[in-house]
Amino acid sequence: MNPRLFSFVGGNMGTWRVLSSTAIVGEPLPHVGWISVEEGNVEHLPLGGSWVLRGVASNERYTTQAEKGQLTARQAPMGRPEATYGALIPIRKRDAWWAMSQDRRREIFEERSRHIGIGLDYLPAIARKLHHCRDLPTSEPFDFLTFFDFAEEDETEFDAMLAELRSTEEWNYIDREVDIRMVRLA
Amino acid sequence: MNPRLFSFVGGNMGTWRVLSSTAIVGEPLPHVGWISVEEGNVEHLPLGGSWVLRGVASNERYTTQAEKGQLTARQAPMGRPEATYGALIPIRKRDAWWAMSQDRRREIFEERSRHIGIGLDYLPAIARKLHHCRDLPTSEPFDFLTFFDFAEEDETEFDAMLAELRSTEEWNYIDREVDIRMVRLA
Repeated sequence: MNPRLFSFVGGNMGTWRVLSSTAIVGEPLPHVGWISVEEGNVEHLPLGGSWVLRGVASNERYTTQAEKGQLTARQAPMGRPEATYGALIPIRKRDAWWAMSQDRRREIFEERSRHIGIGLDYLPAIARKLHHCRDLPTSEPFDFLTFFDFAEEDETEFDAMLAELRSTEEWNYIDREVDIRMVRLA
Repeated sequence: MNPRLFSFVGGNMGTWRVLSSTAIVGEPLPHVGWISVEEGNVEHLPLGGSWVLRGVASNERYTTQAEKGQLTARQAPMGRPEATYGALIPIRKRDAWWAMSQDRRREIFEERSRHIGIGLDYLPAIARKLHHCRDLPTSEPFDFLTFFDFAEEDETEFDAMLAELRSTEEWNYIDREVDIRMVRLA
């Protein structure tokens, strides 16, 4: 089993209680009460499960060495005790995005949309972990699952960050996005 | 099922008859008589199968728009009637490769090793298709599977291309490589 693979199971149990689930673009996900984050591949829905999304943490696709240095210096790890608020944001990008060469995608991603730059502005309050789904053997409904956590008082900052990202040129290539907010009961 | 996923089954049947299998770096693969290329995920070894390697064709990770234009202008598709010779070359890269930022990897891959440039020099004689394994849910023994085909008289050219690639800085990051040569009986 690939140790970088995680499954997010939406259903009636888990450590994250769902506060809201909003379709930003495209189809919503069926509403669930709880989300459980499991290591490895949940192949079959457990009893009480409504959906499962899978993704693999992988190597960086766009980050330069200089940007990596800035991120490493500023970012906080996931799971800080005060970070009881969370978000799971699955997104899918259009075929036109995937058909572009690496340099064209990088240009839109950072030089024109400041994706990494915007994220940096909200460190260390907002911690994040990215999972890739597009190259899994199963036909997954999203290309990426980003899992965030932050303290309750930083939710306004988190909303501001998402508003910035969603106004970028990169976001024109997103044809499905669901924003699931959660609180950790652990 | 992801339509870009392929399984390469080594065993006692298939459309490709194995001529030789050579470990270039690291562990060899058990020798087999035939290789069968299957669409989708072969989860369990079929009767007479010795091993299965899986990989997903994906978006480009390093190619620039200019390079893509040159490749598109010159390359031939896989499966030309005269391309009865084939090679399956699985490789794995060291952790140090995957830990590098995108710009550092690109610099070694192309600016210092001319990976794309060397490949271009051998077009259209050598056709190729790249499959990614590193982010599959199963713990795969390789990171990439490259499948090549060419006419019998171009095997010397193919050998010359591999010799060039294997002498590059990029190849210092490869810790396992097996070179399987095949002939198509179809």
